[in-house]
Amino acid sequence: MITTGNLPAPLMQTIDRIQPRSETWYAQALQHLDQLTKPPGSLGRLEEIAARLVAIQQVARPSCERKAVYVFAGDHGVVEEGVSAYPQEVTGQMVLNFAHGGAAVNVLARSAGADVVVVDVGVAAEIGPVPGVLVKRVRRGTRNFLKEPAMTREETFAAMEVGISLAEAASREGRKILAIGEMGIGNTTSASALTAAITKADPSKVTGAGTGVTGGAWEKKVEVVRKALAVHARALANPLDTLACLGGYEIAAMSGMVLGAAAQRMAVIIDGFISTAAAAVASQFAPASRDYMIAGHTSQEPGHRFLLDYLGLEPLLSLNMRLGEGSGAVLAFTVVEAAVRIYNEMATFASAGVSQKNE
Amino acid sequence: MITTGNLPAPLMQTIDRIQPRSETWYAQALQHLDQLTKPPGSLGRLEEIAARLVAIQQVARPSCERKAVYVFAGDHGVVEEGVSAYPQEVTGQMVLNFAHGGAAVNVLARSAGADVVVVDVGVAAEIGPVPGVLVKRVRRGTRNFLKEPAMTREETFAAMEVGISLAEAASREGRKILAIGEMGIGNTTSASALTAAITKADPSKVTGAGTGVTGGAWEKKVEVVRKALAVHARALANPLDTLACLGGYEIAAMSGMVLGAAAQRMAVIIDGFISTAAAAVASQFAPASRDYMIAGHTSQEPGHRFLLDYLGLEPLLSLNMRLGEGSGAVLAFTVVEAAVRIYNEMATFASAGVSQKNE
Repeated sequence: MITTGNLPAPLMQTIDRIQPRSETWYAQALQHLDQLTKPPGSLGRLEEIAARLVAIQQVARPSCERKAVYVFAGDHGVVEEGVSAYPQEVTGQMVLNFAHGGAAVNVLARSAGADVVVVDVGVAAEIGPVPGVLVKRVRRGTRNFLKEPAMTREETFAAMEVGISLAEAASREGRKILAIGEMGIGNTTSASALTAAITKADPSKVTGAGTGVTGGAWEKKVEVVRKALAVHARALANPLDTLACLGGYEIAAMSGMVLGAAAQRMAVIIDGFISTAAAAVASQFAPASRDYMIAGHTSQEPGHRFLLDYLGLEPLLSLNMRLGEGSGAVLAFTVVEAAVRIYNEMATFASAGVSQKNE
Repeated sequence: MITTGNLPAPLMQTIDRIQPRSETWYAQALQHLDQLTKPPGSLGRLEEIAARLVAIQQVARPSCERKAVYVFAGDHGVVEEGVSAYPQEVTGQMVLNFAHGGAAVNVLARSAGADVVVVDVGVAAEIGPVPGVLVKRVRRGTRNFLKEPAMTREETFAAMEVGISLAEAASREGRKILAIGEMGIGNTTSASALTAAITKADPSKVTGAGTGVTGGAWEKKVEVVRKALAVHARALANPLDTLACLGGYEIAAMSGMVLGAAAQRMAVIIDGFISTAAAAVASQFAPASRDYMIAGHTSQEPGHRFLLDYLGLEPLLSLNMRLGEGSGAVLAFTVVEAAVRIYNEMATFASAGVSQKNE
C-alpha cells in the first residue's frame, strides 16, 4: 500500500474520493433485471454489467452516453535494448494515424459510437501541433530502465495528473463511461516488468511477443525484464517507485485516469495487457478502484492473465486480439451499451403480459 | 448423408447451389489485412471474420448492410411430459412481445442496428394477425415425440421451405448477412435429442437446464430425451427422419434458412444451443454450408459444445447467456460489423506513412 503522506495533494484527494460501489443499488438492479421478460439470469454477463453500472452510477437508469476512449501515447527508453519489432518512430506516426482516423481504434470507435481522444503524454518524436491530438507531454520518452529509473517521481505524478484531470473534465462534459488505451513502441516490455514486480510471476511467464518478437529476440526481451527487476530491486517494495522505475508516461496517465474515473463514479473499460498493468497500479493506490474497472478483452499477451487474476477481473471479449490502442476496450463498449439498453428498454413480465415460471 | 432423391425439388436445388467459400478470395483478403496499420494478425478473430466474409461474398469490400435476425417460433408436443419450467402459452406471449419490440432480441437488435423478423412457423396458440409477425404456420405445435414422430416428412419439408424462401427474399431485398434465433417452450428438449442423435453423446451430457429445470426435473428431462432416442432408434440413421422425429417447426425452418443463406452466398450467424442444432442438421444436408456459419456465442447449455465441435465452429462471444431468441447472434452482429469496418476503413502502412516492421 501507498503511504498517502508521500503523494501530492491532487492525487491524494482523488484517492480519498474513491468509494466502493453501492451494494444497495446493486441489489435493486438485480431485482429490476428479474422483472424483465427472460428467465432470471439468462442474459449472463449483460445483467452483471448492467447491475454494476447501476451500482457505480447510483441511478435508476444507467447510461453510457458520450462514451469515449482515451489513447495515451508515450515512448520508452528501453527500446535501445532492441526489445521491439518496430522502430520507435512508429509511436509518433501512429499518433498521426489516430488523429487522421485511420487506425483500428478509430474504426472500432466509429462502429461503437464512441469518441476517440488522443493524448501525447510522452512521445519521443516532435509531431508538432496536430488537430485531434492533446499535447500533455511530460517528457520525450522515458529513460532506459536498465540504466536508471524510467521516470522521476515528479514526472510520474505529472503523468498521473494528466489522466486524473482528463477524467474530471470528461465527467464535467457529461461522459458516463470511459475506456483507456495506449500506443508506445516498447511498452509491452515495461508492462511485463510491472507485471512481474506486482504479481511476483517469473519474467518468462509474463513476457510475450509484443508486436512480433519471437525466438532469440523474445529470450532477450525476457532477460531485459529480469535485469530491470534486479536493477530496481530495492524500489519494488513501493508501488509508486515501481511505477516510476519500470513504467512509462502513458502507463502512469492510464493509472491516473482509472483513479480519476473511479473518483467521479464512472466505469472505465480496460483494454489489454498494458492498460491492465496500469489498472493494477491504480488498484495499489486505491483498492476500491477495482469496482469501477471493466475488463474489455483478453489479450494474447501471456502476462495479461496474471494481471486479470490479480485484479479479480474477467474480460468480456476474447477474440485473440493483441493490438492495444484501446481496440479491445472500444469493441467492449458495444457489449456495455447492449447491457445498458437491456436494463432500460426491455419489457417486464407484467407490462408484456407474459406468464411467469411454473411453480 | 441425405440421398437427395428423396427430397422435394426446391430443397434439392438449394442444396445443389451451395459451394464452398472461395479460397482465392480468402487469400486476397489476408493480403489486404496485412497492409493495414497494425502488426499482422493482431486483430485476431476480427481479421478471420473479415476474410471469411470476403470469401463468402466474393467482393473487394465485404458488407453487412441490412443485417437482420429471423426469430422462428414454434411449440413442442413434448411439453406434456413436463420438461419445461414455463407453460406453453409463453411461446405465443413472447411472439407478441417480439412484435411489440419489448424482448431482449429487439433491444439488442436496436443496439446493433439490425432488423428483427418474427416468423410463426408452428405456435400452438392462436395469436391472430399481428403487425410484425409473419404467419407461416405449418401446424399448431409438433406432436409429442415420445409417442410418434414430432413432424411428418411433408411438414418438415414445409418448415424448411419457410426458411429457404425467407433467405432468398432477404437476398433479393439486399440483405448481406442473416442471423437465426428461436422461441419455443420445450425446444431445448428437442435440441438435446437432436444433439444426442447427431453427435452420439449420452443424453445426460447434452441436456441442460433450459429455461430453469434443475434437480429431479432435470433428471426427468434426460429420461425423456433417452426414451425419445429409443422410440425412434430406427429412424435415426437418416438425417431427414431424425429431424422429423425429434425436431420442431422452428428448428427445421432455421435449418432451411442456413441452407438458403449459403445458397445465396450470405453468411449466417448462429445463436445458441437450439439454432446450432438446426445448423448441425443443415450441415448434414449440405456439408459446405458450414463455410457460411458464424457461431455467435457460447450458450450455457451443455449440449452446445458438442454441436460446436461437430461443426468445427468457435463462437465469437462467451457471455454466459442462455436465452435464445437470437439474442447472442444479434450481439455478435456488432463484432461482425466491426470486422467489416476494419477491413474497409483502416489506413494502410503506405497511405498513413507508418514504418513497417524491423527486419
